[in-house]
Amino acid sequence: MTHRIAILGASGYTGAELVRLIATHPSMRIVALSADRKAGMSMAEVFPFLRHLDLARLVKIDEIDFSTVDLCFCALPHATSQAVIATLPRDLKIVDLSADFRLRDPAEYEKWYGQPHAAVELQKEAVYGLTEFYRDEIRAARLVAGTGCNAATGQFALRPLIAAGVIDLDDILIDLKAGVSGAGRSLKENLLHAELSGGTHAYSAGGKHRHLGEFDQEFSKVADRPVHVRFTPHLLPMNRGILASVYVKGDAKIIHQTLEKAYESEPFLKVLPFGTLPSTRDVAGSNFCHLGVIGDRVPGRALVVAVLDNLTKGSSGQAIQNANLMLGLPETEGLMLTPVFP
Amino acid sequence: MTHRIAILGASGYTGAELVRLIATHPSMRIVALSADRKAGMSMAEVFPFLRHLDLARLVKIDEIDFSTVDLCFCALPHATSQAVIATLPRDLKIVDLSADFRLRDPAEYEKWYGQPHAAVELQKEAVYGLTEFYRDEIRAARLVAGTGCNAATGQFALRPLIAAGVIDLDDILIDLKAGVSGAGRSLKENLLHAELSGGTHAYSAGGKHRHLGEFDQEFSKVADRPVHVRFTPHLLPMNRGILASVYVKGDAKIIHQTLEKAYESEPFLKVLPFGTLPSTRDVAGSNFCHLGVIGDRVPGRALVVAVLDNLTKGSSGQAIQNANLMLGLPETEGLMLTPVFP
Amino acid sequence: MTHRIAILGASGYTGAELVRLIATHPSMRIVALSADRKAGMSMAEVFPFLRHLDLARLVKIDEIDFSTVDLCFCALPHATSQAVIATLPRDLKIVDLSADFRLRDPAEYEKWYGQPHAAVELQKEAVYGLTEFYRDEIRAARLVAGTGCNAATGQFALRPLIAAGVIDLDDILIDLKAGVSGAGRSLKENLLHAELSGGTHAYSAGGKHRHLGEFDQEFSKVADRPVHVRFTPHLLPMNRGILASVYVKGDAKIIHQTLEKAYESEPFLKVLPFGTLPSTRDVAGSNFCHLGVIGDRVPGRALVVAVLDNLTKGSSGQAIQNANLMLGLPETEGLMLTPVFP
Amino acid sequence: MTHRIAILGASGYTGAELVRLIATHPSMRIVALSADRKAGMSMAEVFPFLRHLDLARLVKIDEIDFSTVDLCFCALPHATSQAVIATLPRDLKIVDLSADFRLRDPAEYEKWYGQPHAAVELQKEAVYGLTEFYRDEIRAARLVAGTGCNAATGQFALRPLIAAGVIDLDDILIDLKAGVSGAGRSLKENLLHAELSGGTHAYSAGGKHRHLGEFDQEFSKVADRPVHVRFTPHLLPMNRGILASVYVKGDAKIIHQTLEKAYESEPFLKVLPFGTLPSTRDVAGSNFCHLGVIGDRVPGRALVVAVLDNLTKGSSGQAIQNANLMLGLPETEGLMLTPVFP
Repeated sequence: MTHRIAILGASGYTGAELVRLIATHPSMRIVALSADRKAGMSMAEVFPFLRHLDLARLVKIDEIDFSTVDLCFCALPHATSQAVIATLPRDLKIVDLSADFRLRDPAEYEKWYGQPHAAVELQKEAVYGLTEFYRDEIRAARLVAGTGCNAATGQFALRPLIAAGVIDLDDILIDLKAGVSGAGRSLKENLLHAELSGGTHAYSAGGKHRHLGEFDQEFSKVADRPVHVRFTPHLLPMNRGILASVYVKGDAKIIHQTLEKAYESEPFLKVLPFGTLPSTRDVAGSNFCHLGVIGDRVPGRALVVAVLDNLTKGSSGQAIQNANLMLGLPETEGLMLTPVFP
Repeated sequence: MTHRIAILGASGYTGAELVRLIATHPSMRIVALSADRKAGMSMAEVFPFLRHLDLARLVKIDEIDFSTVDLCFCALPHATSQAVIATLPRDLKIVDLSADFRLRDPAEYEKWYGQPHAAVELQKEAVYGLTEFYRDEIRAARLVAGTGCNAATGQFALRPLIAAGVIDLDDILIDLKAGVSGAGRSLKENLLHAELSGGTHAYSAGGKHRHLGEFDQEFSKVADRPVHVRFTPHLLPMNRGILASVYVKGDAKIIHQTLEKAYESEPFLKVLPFGTLPSTRDVAGSNFCHLGVIGDRVPGRALVVAVLDNLTKGSSGQAIQNANLMLGLPETEGLMLTPVFP
Repeated sequence: MTHRIAILGASGYTGAELVRLIATHPSMRIVALSADRKAGMSMAEVFPFLRHLDLARLVKIDEIDFSTVDLCFCALPHATSQAVIATLPRDLKIVDLSADFRLRDPAEYEKWYGQPHAAVELQKEAVYGLTEFYRDEIRAARLVAGTGCNAATGQFALRPLIAAGVIDLDDILIDLKAGVSGAGRSLKENLLHAELSGGTHAYSAGGKHRHLGEFDQEFSKVADRPVHVRFTPHLLPMNRGILASVYVKGDAKIIHQTLEKAYESEPFLKVLPFGTLPSTRDVAGSNFCHLGVIGDRVPGRALVVAVLDNLTKGSSGQAIQNANLMLGLPETEGLMLTPVFP
Repeated sequence: MTHRIAILGASGYTGAELVRLIATHPSMRIVALSADRKAGMSMAEVFPFLRHLDLARLVKIDEIDFSTVDLCFCALPHATSQAVIATLPRDLKIVDLSADFRLRDPAEYEKWYGQPHAAVELQKEAVYGLTEFYRDEIRAARLVAGTGCNAATGQFALRPLIAAGVIDLDDILIDLKAGVSGAGRSLKENLLHAELSGGTHAYSAGGKHRHLGEFDQEFSKVADRPVHVRFTPHLLPMNRGILASVYVKGDAKIIHQTLEKAYESEPFLKVLPFGTLPSTRDVAGSNFCHLGVIGDRVPGRALVVAVLDNLTKGSSGQAIQNANLMLGLPETEGLMLTPVFP
């Protein structure tokens, strides 16, 4: 059976990545694509790399007949998403890729995003979309909130360790290196090739990055006590990929064993041999996350490194993984694409 | 039915690209992988991006039982390939990705490659692997010689024009821009990131590049008279992709119509609207070739631009396309992957 | 004696490059810097790489007291420049880096720039700033028009050949590869790192690029007959650098000798040994232009390759070279910086 | 007065960077250049970007008449350097850029470099070349050991803080991001453009990187007790630049004030306003080091970020800074070049 898919916000990178992945998905078919400012254009005009596909023209959201849609991906900007989703049919399955429904607590949302939530009822209904840890809830969900790409990377490294009690909860540091596509297709001076290539810098440092809201919510829930990690992202001259260097207090071997055991049946999470650390290049264009663990010369200290592709496992691939569950499909369907190297 | 595949020379980029593509090919299964110096290693050690696949360990060629192999891809270095293929069973289907069997005339081979051919009989038997123009021969072939990646790009732009007689055969210029993966994984100073990134230069200029042998052979055959193009490749700071700027004398509109008509049924060749030129980014990681045509302000002059991914359509994707034909499979099977952007 | 310098439009790349070069220029001192939208900011805020310099704050142009200025560089956008310069004191020495005064014929200006010129009198007065060919005029000039960066590159390859009559004037083709800083700091989707890195494409193809106006004007003047070259620029994933592959009909050895002789006393133009072609990496960050010549296998055809840094020799370095002449300083003063490699 | 300079190992990146900087140094003149395997070649052949300079041909070391040399830079590989320097005249001033004389304790040298030191007497004589902290000793020294580039970056961030006692000495973490030129011009698979561009990974993690020997020696000396930092370097797809994210326990404002005060008179060390963090792009090609400090949301935690160009301030620029002192020249002479951006 083929499920009919709509993508709202198809003119951004996560929208285009959804199209890329669904194009070879055996059980999904795109029936509607929206893009506000580019309505009327074909996808080949907006993204020539999709030229070979026979796709619907871009329309405005209110032109879509949602009665013909089985599941809708929302790849809209933050804040826009909550306003739009509030107007969609209440029985429509939705995977939202924005930040709007990630935080369950309206006060936390307002704290991190600077404005009150405009759809508090929906916020309560939404399930957090980190598939490997919310499978049952996602299967039963109508509205799933895709995680932040940085938040996903850090959680893959840390959740099993927090749950197993094998690290010090008060001394967790995430130094993260991120590719530029995570910033989207927005026109900002610091995203120009001339400004970004050939160098690196930190951003949103000092505990200001919004994905900290997700870390707080999720890690505190797993630990059943408040956990407040330190987190510094850095922007790198690469298009796809996140590498999280996660510094923890704990026994490196036990940490490695804990991750290995937690992920031994996971199709997308690969724990490397002890002492081997992963590269972002090895997951580019794929839904895989590679993890490595190494001890430090300072006793009792360990480094966990997790890598994933922010547009795939960190966003659109994760979204399809969740949609597969919501539609009763095999979780990995359409997602076993091999990374592209070099 | 699943066909059993061997890949010789699996530790190079074209070998790894074959593995990537076959991993999601519904009718092919890899049963043997060879790598001379890396025999004994797993593919995950040589190419960590293949870690999620359950692949055979790398062996030496003479450890492979070819009676269990239906088709063999040879991704070996030039000159090595002819020596190895001469020792393989005479009824084994082979797609060779090296330069060894591209030129039919032993004298031409010696001229361009600087040594006599060591397997002249096989050279005669081999079919030139530019699928779109040799389909029938390839279907019936035992040994197919994959084309040069630059040679493929130039031919996609020019063959229909030469065949149709719509351009001046004595004034053809190919200015080509190539990514670095075409040079393979070899350790050369000029391929280091520090030497290559951030700049560009021409190489093998002045009519010295070996792919000119292929251009001469094929264009002269199509034209039924000698055709000697000019050809200058440039190395660019990008990993995948070739862009050929092909300058011709002829009517641009007629040239565009000729290409459109020639390729209207081709699944992998996409002719853009007149006046629109393609980017290498739009075919990265895919088996597609995009072509564009524009007229010049100088009357009677036109520019044809062709782009493809050297590792896919220019090499390993083309090889699988040919293998599909040789095995009686649909030509596009396993090859309709969407490009990866950004 | 120290000359007092003003830079209008200091918040763009060519403005910043002027500051970089003047910072170590022994006879120039910056006394005023303007930037319309960023007036009030310090240069360290706009360009942190200039943090170590003690520079004037950015102001609006009308805040500058030009009576204290000996020479003014205008690094303003096209069209803005002519309007601003028309308001400046008539005895102020000016080097303009925009396109506004490059074309002498108002009709040609209107043809290429799509609007009538707003300061036709100044247009007549302006001297074309290709230093090596207009030295005497520049020494005596009040207003010098910096050349286009692509136009400079092509002219360094071709002017001596046209003057000497050693190439066919009706068959000249310039295939040019350009880094992205030439497009300036403007916010355009195609200049984003995610869109530009890792690939290449042609732009303004088909005889539409505005620098063709300069080629026409200058080559026709040198030849004393109309000369219309073909010219296709390509955008490359690099920040600095232009490489022009110039295809001509003529004897390669004679062409090489002609260039060698023409440039034997030029401090910034370096002709490589016959058969050696240059790389953009070898001139990055410097005022040098390297040139190479090679013959083709097709008799009577030759390739000339010229490389330079678009921000230095192609723009701000050239501007200072011209200013040196206008101020009676040694032409090379402050400009003998070695390229930065890697 | 012009000092006569020899550079041993001129065919590597640090050797070439020395040539670049000395080319515009008013008081130094290169009289001899050595390169073992490339002896007989001109520098223009080895490094075409130096083509405009009138340089001595490359020779073998034993061809150099050191009686005509005032100061010698050794840019030789580790281990080679100590063997060569042991054979040089005992009154020759030497700045060594290798790791051979950085560690004062022969046991520490053997521990980190895996072999006994072959010139223990010279090791005792050598002065550690971190100019800002060893000025007096360097002025009086005959043999100065240039620091590791990573080691320099970390020390600029930490030395004043350790000396002032404003951070917890038992909880210091350096997460470092390094460009590829630090690995030199060596032919390694992981340094190829195709392998390195577009991604990132950690290396020498877990307390194995040799620059830890320098950190231990210097920080323990400053603190007058053992200090063992944690240190993880990551390789980034950029050619020049190091960014050290240094995580410490302490009051961020006091840390910022401590750095500001320590460096207020330093010509090359620039402390940014509190809360502003630097980018590697802003020091590329220069001898500057920019430092920034920000507090964390976790009370009592702070982040110090230091950036420099590994080839300049991290190596060859530092070497010239030291040579200036050894020769009685102004410390900044020839080194005030502005960074190159973009």
